[in-house]
Amino acid sequence: MTPFADRLAALVEERHSQICLGLDPDPAKLGGEALSDAAGDNTPVAERAGAAVAAHCRSLIERAGPACVAVKPQLACFERLGAPGWAALAETCRVARDAGLLVVADGKRGDVPVTAAAYAQALVGETPTAWGPVAGLGADAFTANPLLGRDALEPLVAAAEAAGAGVFVLVRTSNPGAADLQDLPAPERPLHERLAALVDGFSDRLMGEGGLSGMGAVVGATEPECFARLRALMPRSIFLIPGVGAQGGRPELLGAAFAAGPASGLVAASRGIAADPAAAAERLRAAVWDVSTA
Amino acid sequence: MTPFADRLAALVEERHSQICLGLDPDPAKLGGEALSDAAGDNTPVAERAGAAVAAHCRSLIERAGPACVAVKPQLACFERLGAPGWAALAETCRVARDAGLLVVADGKRGDVPVTAAAYAQALVGETPTAWGPVAGLGADAFTANPLLGRDALEPLVAAAEAAGAGVFVLVRTSNPGAADLQDLPAPERPLHERLAALVDGFSDRLMGEGGLSGMGAVVGATEPECFARLRALMPRSIFLIPGVGAQGGRPELLGAAFAAGPASGLVAASRGIAADPAAAAERLRAAVWDVSTA
Repeated sequence: MTPFADRLAALVEERHSQICLGLDPDPAKLGGEALSDAAGDNTPVAERAGAAVAAHCRSLIERAGPACVAVKPQLACFERLGAPGWAALAETCRVARDAGLLVVADGKRGDVPVTAAAYAQALVGETPTAWGPVAGLGADAFTANPLLGRDALEPLVAAAEAAGAGVFVLVRTSNPGAADLQDLPAPERPLHERLAALVDGFSDRLMGEGGLSGMGAVVGATEPECFARLRALMPRSIFLIPGVGAQGGRPELLGAAFAAGPASGLVAASRGIAADPAAAAERLRAAVWDVSTA
Repeated sequence: MTPFADRLAALVEERHSQICLGLDPDPAKLGGEALSDAAGDNTPVAERAGAAVAAHCRSLIERAGPACVAVKPQLACFERLGAPGWAALAETCRVARDAGLLVVADGKRGDVPVTAAAYAQALVGETPTAWGPVAGLGADAFTANPLLGRDALEPLVAAAEAAGAGVFVLVRTSNPGAADLQDLPAPERPLHERLAALVDGFSDRLMGEGGLSGMGAVVGATEPECFARLRALMPRSIFLIPGVGAQGGRPELLGAAFAAGPASGLVAASRGIAADPAAAAERLRAAVWDVSTA
């Protein structure tokens, strides 16, 4: 299997895009026509909502997908619908793959090693059972929470290595409260720089032939002053960059993130493109491509 | 709704137990007879495995449940089976409730505020949809990862408050790698003490009438020397204590965790009781009750 970093780089070059389409479906906002094709009248509420969520994600992928290289389903938005929500998530991953997009499963999982291995099975592996293996989501990459330390990341990285997948570790998130812990001096430098060093320590494991590593980092667009320092600490990692648009991050400030090349960053587009996905994704694609190649 | 802390305290007093039965089903180890009642021969693999997982959890609850006050399903072990796994999780939560046990959903979720609110809907709330609300798991409490800071915990606490539920925040986990980050000086005291202060700051919100708060903390049994200091920093929080048994934690060293009373700690029993669940859970119950009332 070609490593995630190389598959991403090929798509970035082909599409001149680093946009990752965020899929955060809200079933309170979906109704009426979208459903009529997807489920009958007697379907229980969770199944109707799951079908509507899957139809909505398919439509978003059809409209905004051509300007993007990846999708980022937000697992919380699916699992709140229970089993039908998980079925919608699996279907959405298939639809994205069929559209030629990479899938970044955004669940921010993290747990002790034995449990981390189970999360890896769900995301990029398969689960052995007495009756044969059960395939996971088949994601191309996933987000991970590093609070439990190196031994808890190890099974995630090992599974990604086996699957040719990528891992995006939370390093500096885009919400205001991120400062509470991630920016603490710990003791001589901020905790997020420690997290960056932890990520870089794994980067050999997920190296592509193009010089980038699928051992990536989530770095929010809301703190662009962090980019240069974090790029220096993780010279080969792909950055997954949330927070552009609704949260205030600006594409023109992302230049330092792309110092390792046009495929060294993925910019998430979620709430900011809701109103007119096709046009907004294309505008963002052009703006980010420009800054990545400046 | 009676607050989680008071519901737990009543059960602890009634059953003289602080044992939380870990449910970490491994479908590779389940087969043969357990399945024959649960699913027919033509069922797809994931559904057969999901049915076997649900049957296994039901059997564990029947055998070990009487010595316990709660169950702790490990979400990773269910979601790796996809939609059928999530259905098995929901069924297991119902079976535990019917057996008079509290449910602690162990998913260690954590995300930016808008997404944290979606996780809360999945765990202790409901999700509005255009066709009516979809109920979540109905857990009595859940575990949460605090790396994203105070604003990311807020929606989880608010949802717990509304549902009369508890929250167990990762403060000092039981795996060896926990030391990598949680024990860093940050700068004048370890990061886990910062996390403890964060937890204590929310404790008023989930207070019971008995003086304990459902704003709890995960504190591993593998580092018992932390208990006294963390109890001083979180005088009203219930501790969820993993790591007894397979990971090396010893019940007789847990005394300081129970300084706030017999209902101020829940001891997780998982891999350590696999061989003979009924007898092993009863032995652990007696050992922990003794140390909590010494």
